[in-house]
Formats: sequence, C-alpha cells, structure tokens
Amino acid sequence: MSAPAQRPITREALVALDHADPLGGFRDRFALPPGVIYLDGNSLGALPAATPARLAEVLTREWGEGLIRSWNQHGWIDLPLRLGDKIARLTGAPPGSVIAADSTSVNLFKALSAALALRPERRVILSQPGNFPTDLYIAEGLARLLGRDHVLRLAEPEALDSSVAVLMLTQVDYRSGRLLDMAGLTAAAHAAGALVVWDLSHSAGVVPIDLAGSGADFAVGCGYKYLNGGPGAPGFLYVAPALHARLELPMTGWLGHAAPFAFEPTYRPAPGIARAAVGTPPILGLSALEVGLDLALAAPIAEIRAKSLRQTALFAQLVAQECDGLGLRILLEPERGSQVALAHPQAYPIMQALIASGVIGDVRAPDILRFGFAPLYVGFAEIWDAVQVLREVLRSGVWREARFQTRAAVT
Amino acid sequence: MSAPAQRPITREALVALDHADPLGGFRDRFALPPGVIYLDGNSLGALPAATPARLAEVLTREWGEGLIRSWNQHGWIDLPLRLGDKIARLTGAPPGSVIAADSTSVNLFKALSAALALRPERRVILSQPGNFPTDLYIAEGLARLLGRDHVLRLAEPEALDSSVAVLMLTQVDYRSGRLLDMAGLTAAAHAAGALVVWDLSHSAGVVPIDLAGSGADFAVGCGYKYLNGGPGAPGFLYVAPALHARLELPMTGWLGHAAPFAFEPTYRPAPGIARAAVGTPPILGLSALEVGLDLALAAPIAEIRAKSLRQTALFAQLVAQECDGLGLRILLEPERGSQVALAHPQAYPIMQALIASGVIGDVRAPDILRFGFAPLYVGFAEIWDAVQVLREVLRSGVWREARFQTRAAVT
Repeated sequence: MSAPAQRPITREALVALDHADPLGGFRDRFALPPGVIYLDGNSLGALPAATPARLAEVLTREWGEGLIRSWNQHGWIDLPLRLGDKIARLTGAPPGSVIAADSTSVNLFKALSAALALRPERRVILSQPGNFPTDLYIAEGLARLLGRDHVLRLAEPEALDSSVAVLMLTQVDYRSGRLLDMAGLTAAAHAAGALVVWDLSHSAGVVPIDLAGSGADFAVGCGYKYLNGGPGAPGFLYVAPALHARLELPMTGWLGHAAPFAFEPTYRPAPGIARAAVGTPPILGLSALEVGLDLALAAPIAEIRAKSLRQTALFAQLVAQECDGLGLRILLEPERGSQVALAHPQAYPIMQALIASGVIGDVRAPDILRFGFAPLYVGFAEIWDAVQVLREVLRSGVWREARFQTRAAVT
Repeated sequence: MSAPAQRPITREALVALDHADPLGGFRDRFALPPGVIYLDGNSLGALPAATPARLAEVLTREWGEGLIRSWNQHGWIDLPLRLGDKIARLTGAPPGSVIAADSTSVNLFKALSAALALRPERRVILSQPGNFPTDLYIAEGLARLLGRDHVLRLAEPEALDSSVAVLMLTQVDYRSGRLLDMAGLTAAAHAAGALVVWDLSHSAGVVPIDLAGSGADFAVGCGYKYLNGGPGAPGFLYVAPALHARLELPMTGWLGHAAPFAFEPTYRPAPGIARAAVGTPPILGLSALEVGLDLALAAPIAEIRAKSLRQTALFAQLVAQECDGLGLRILLEPERGSQVALAHPQAYPIMQALIASGVIGDVRAPDILRFGFAPLYVGFAEIWDAVQVLREVLRSGVWREARFQTRAAVT
C-alpha cells in the first residue's frame, strides 16, 4: 500500500482558516497599506492603528500643555519600568526585572559587561559563529575595551568550558529562524559555571518565553519587531532578580541613581533593574512602544504560537507546491521562530521584484529571501497570494530587469 | 555729583521691547498652553507647533504605509548624520563631525572612553566638583569599568597636569548658569597634553558655540532643552575630524559598521563620525528633534544671544526691584548661559506655589530656584508678570500651605 497522495493546498482552504482564526480580529487593530502583503514584521512590525492618536496625545497634551510637569503628572518617569513590567509578562519574567531603555545593542553591552563583572576569574565570551552581527560586534568591542585578555570565542555551545564567563545566544536565528532551547542551553552554561545572555529580538512577542523558568541570567530584546513599537523603538534588558544585588553596570547614568533628583556628587545605584537606566527616557519612543505591547498582551501567546507554526509550515508547503523547479531552496527549521528562509543565488533582485509587486520580505546576504509571519496581522489567504506572486516573479524572470538590481542603502 | 538714580523698570517698557523684538515672530511657531509663563526651557523645551503634524506624517505615511521601505525611501537611515550636520551648524562644527544618537549620558560614555584610548599612558579624568551629576557618574563608572587605575579627579581646571588624560567640562553650569571659556580652557588642556570633552547640554541652541575654532576634541549635548526635540530626545556627539582616523569607541554596534547590511562576522568601523552609531536609530525621536533643529537654525544665533543676555539681566534687575526684602539671593553670573538662579531655603515649596500660579521654573537641591529663558518663545512682558507672581507668592506666604510641600518624583 502506497502512502496517500498529499492533497494540494487550495486558496479556499486558507480563506477558511482565516474565517476560523481566533486572532482574526487583530488585523483591524493595525494600519496596513492596501495592496501590500507584509511579511517583514520580523524586521519592522506594522503600525498599530491606535499609535497615531496616542502619540498625538503625548505631543499635544502631555508635552505641549503639560511641559516639564508631565514627568510627574503623566508618569513619564515611570515609563521604563512600567513598560518593563509589560515586557516581563510577555517573556515569563517577574515584575521588576525588565527595563525598556536604549537600543538592543546598548542593552547588550550592559548585559555582557555585567556578566563579565560577575565572573572576574574568567575571560571568554562564547557565542555562535552565525549569531546576529551586532551581538558579535558589541562583544568584540567590549572585550577590546576591557583589555584584560578578554576574548570573544565563536563556537557552538558544546565548547563551553571553565574559561567561559558568559554564553551569548540568540533565541531565534535572524537568518534561518532556528529556535534554540533556552532552558537546556542555560542549564548547560550554568553547569559549566558560565552565565547566559539571551537575545530575544526575533522571539519576543511571537514565541512563548520563560525567562524565569529557564533560569536565564540576562536577556535583551528589540521593541520594533514583533512588539510593534515603531522604527528604532527602545529595546529592553532583563536581569534575573537573584543577580540584582551584585549587579554592576558599565554606564552609570543619573537615571539609574538611587535618587536622580538629589543630584548627589557620587553614584549610588538604584535598587534592582532601575539601575540599568542611563540617560533621560525617550518618551515618544516609549509611548509608541506601549501601544504595541498592549496589543501583544491582548492576544494569548499560545494562539500566536499555534498560528505562527501553522503559517510558516503552510508557506513552506505552498512554495514547494507552487514553485517547484524554479530554483528555490526551502530552509524550514523544525524548531523555529516565525520566519522562513528561501535560498536563491539572485535573492536581492528577486526580493526587489516581489516588493514592487506588493509582497514585502527582505534579504540577508548572500542568498537568503526572508519571510516573517506576524500572526496578529498576517492572514492565511495572504500566504497563498504571496506565493503566487513569488511564482510569477520567478517564472517571468522580471527580476532580471535593471531596475531591480540597484542596491539600496538598507537591504 | 551723585550717580543718577536708576529708573525703575516698567511693564510698558517691556511690552515695548516685545514689539521691537526681532525674534518676536518665533513665539507663534511654538504651541504653548494659555495661562502659563514657561521659564523651564532649559530643562524641557516647548513643543514646536509643527511637530505634531510632522510626527503624524512619520507615523501614518512613513511607518504605516512605507513600512520597512522607509529606511531607504524616507531616508530614515540617514537621519543620525543628517541631523548631526544641522547640529554642527548650530555649534560651529564642520559637516560630518556630529551624530544625533542615543542619550547624552551614553554619548558621554563614548566620548570619555574614546578620549582615554587616545591617551593610554594617562589615567585621570579631570572634572569640576559641581559638574552635572550624570557626567560625574558616567566618568566614575567608566573609570571603574576599565579597572586600570583610572580615576575621576574633581578639581578646577587649574589642576591640569601630566596625569590628566581628559578634561571634562560643561559649558554652562546647570545650577548657576555660569558660562565657561571654551577656547581658553581647551587651550589650557591641550597645553597640558590632555584632551577635552565639552558638555553642551545647557548651551547648544542658546549660546554661540565654536567647536572647530576652539579646538575642542569631543562634545556631547542634549536634544530636549534649547533644541526643543521633545522629552528624552536623542542627544548628540561631536568628534573633531582630526581624531576620526584613530577613533576607538567602546560600543561597536552594527549601525557603526562600515557595511551594516553586509552582516560581516567581524567589526569594521565606518569612516568618520558614522562609527559612533550603535543600534538602530530612534526614528520618532529623531523626527521630532529635526523640527526643533530647523526652528533653531531659522533664528540668527546673535539675536538669540542678545535677547538671552537682556532677558536674564532684566529678570535679575526686576527681582531686585520688586522682591527686595523677601529673602531671595540673586545669583546672576556675569558670563552666563540663558538662566538665572535665585537662592531661598524654601526653594521647593516656593516653586510649587509658582507653578500653581502658572509660572514654571524648577528647583535644584538644596536651595536653588532656577529660571531659564528660551529666547525663541519667552517674551519680555512675561518676565514682568513672572516676577509679580513671584513677589505675590513670597509676600503672601502661600507656599507654606501643605499642598506645596509634598515632594514629587521629579523635582
């Protein structure tokens, strides 16, 4: 008896999934442009429909009318920790362990520096060769700055040994979408006497995360991907409460002081995660981020995860079904975040042609077409339509036109 | 022959100054609330009238419709250097020497770290005891982080000697308003073989600054005071072009890489000031800051300076004339920025009572009432009215009421 033939996926079946989608109501809470299928929320999340009105209020009423008084009257001063607590709910962290501040890269610098200070007898930051470049660059720069034989070593976590002070990992790989086992790798690092810093940039808001349960020491993440905080939104930093009392941070700015407005001559750290603040909080960026966080918190993460896994699987199946023989290699990780990579030697012009046809993803050098699926606003039928556009772009060869070859500053 | 009696200042004379004010037209380009005299632009600048519409455009059209494409199509990726060049015009710096990024405190960390790297044989950061606390805290934290006998020494610039790697000064003192001689002190530092980092937070936009002419090595500053960029606006960093080739920065993030989107495994710094970028630029904050910068650039700095000196002098004269015997000590620096300090042991409740009566300044512990004069939107007659309110608050003793005693989080 042969295996039953797999039924082809139809657009009708996907429309039916949209009708049954428990998250279907979230689509209208985003302002997406007509004629666009947006599969790049893993790079920049979409605009929540409520954000413009909220920002108008912050500008006109809080800044314009409240002026300096709004630091107290509108709670501006509390935003980094208030948003931190919301991010904590999304990442399985206890209240008072997360701050929303600065950029992801700056927060990573803080986390790595603090981790090295907690392991003064060790000198190695261990990370994977394919980790997100800014993570590697920041680690490399910090090691050089400290200048005490610190080094960034690139190897798989199996290379953990007694020289490793801190293991730096990204939960979801930015190119392949591969999802790492946070609890298992954290336990392995701890068994080797190392601390762990997790980068949640491509997982926060779309993958169930259990920072407390996994025993993670530090985590950083990004506000402008699945948290929909807007371009260059503030990032965040988690520090396990057990480390707070001994937490030494490299940038001791006034907002992390125990009494910022006492203007004392010497630094005295605020208790807990509050000491990770440095300069004055960016109120516009934080206010926009809060709208995105509130949307993410309104949706059950189990529903988000189920839809994400289904969408990424369906996309890969559909590409296999509709684009066979057109030169694409499908890279679908079994353990994955919410993205799918397709490899093609001409990834760049193909993506430009896709974008010109209204299907927005991005490319990662040298040959990856990257498609992200944000379950709060991507529909199932859109996946069908996107794959049809992809097939047409590949079959027609339109991507060979000169207009699709010119490199833009941001790719 | 006795000196002629000084004529009392009248409100009519101040109204006449308003009518003759060459900057009078700028007032309507800010959205100030009715019933408020705002003398705290040195802490948080007022809302430019054009900012809400600009932000609405950034949100709805650039983020909402443009999505990821706006990094190229709306020039988001260029904002840090484009705004940097505008700040350069305001501070006497050449194009390509300033970046708008991160917070003032984070930029100061970069500047101090880079300065120490350029003087590896020296170990001392010299700064004045009364410098703004976050500057001192950041220097203290950096010295501790480096852990190679680096120290922050607090003394007047006369203490410059061959152990000093970097002299860190604030051009306008945050409490007294005292203005330092940038060219003279920079020359003194250079004569001692030290580099200089200037903090322009309380001078940029209101004092003529000549970074290039003074030979300053580094400068940092704040976007949300006289540049009117909004609460927690991005700060800026200047590095003298002569230092660019040897510039080593502590936080080597992907946006400072020579080719951020090549995702190379190792860090390769971008040429020039571009390497001072770390993470993804905060587009909302930068967009708001640009509106403030454009306003500042539209006004001749000589007019701003003349009005600022006249307003601060008039305020001090009026307080002397109207509030004599009411317990205030007037601290008017002959060389000053655009603020005046009044000392009173009950500064805090007096300021709360002033704010309740619509006159907004702030307090700096332990006993300073601080009043800032932003020439683009503060009128001369308002100074009269503010001093009348001050007199009434002091004469009536209303500030003794319990409601004015409670400390707020931000003071």
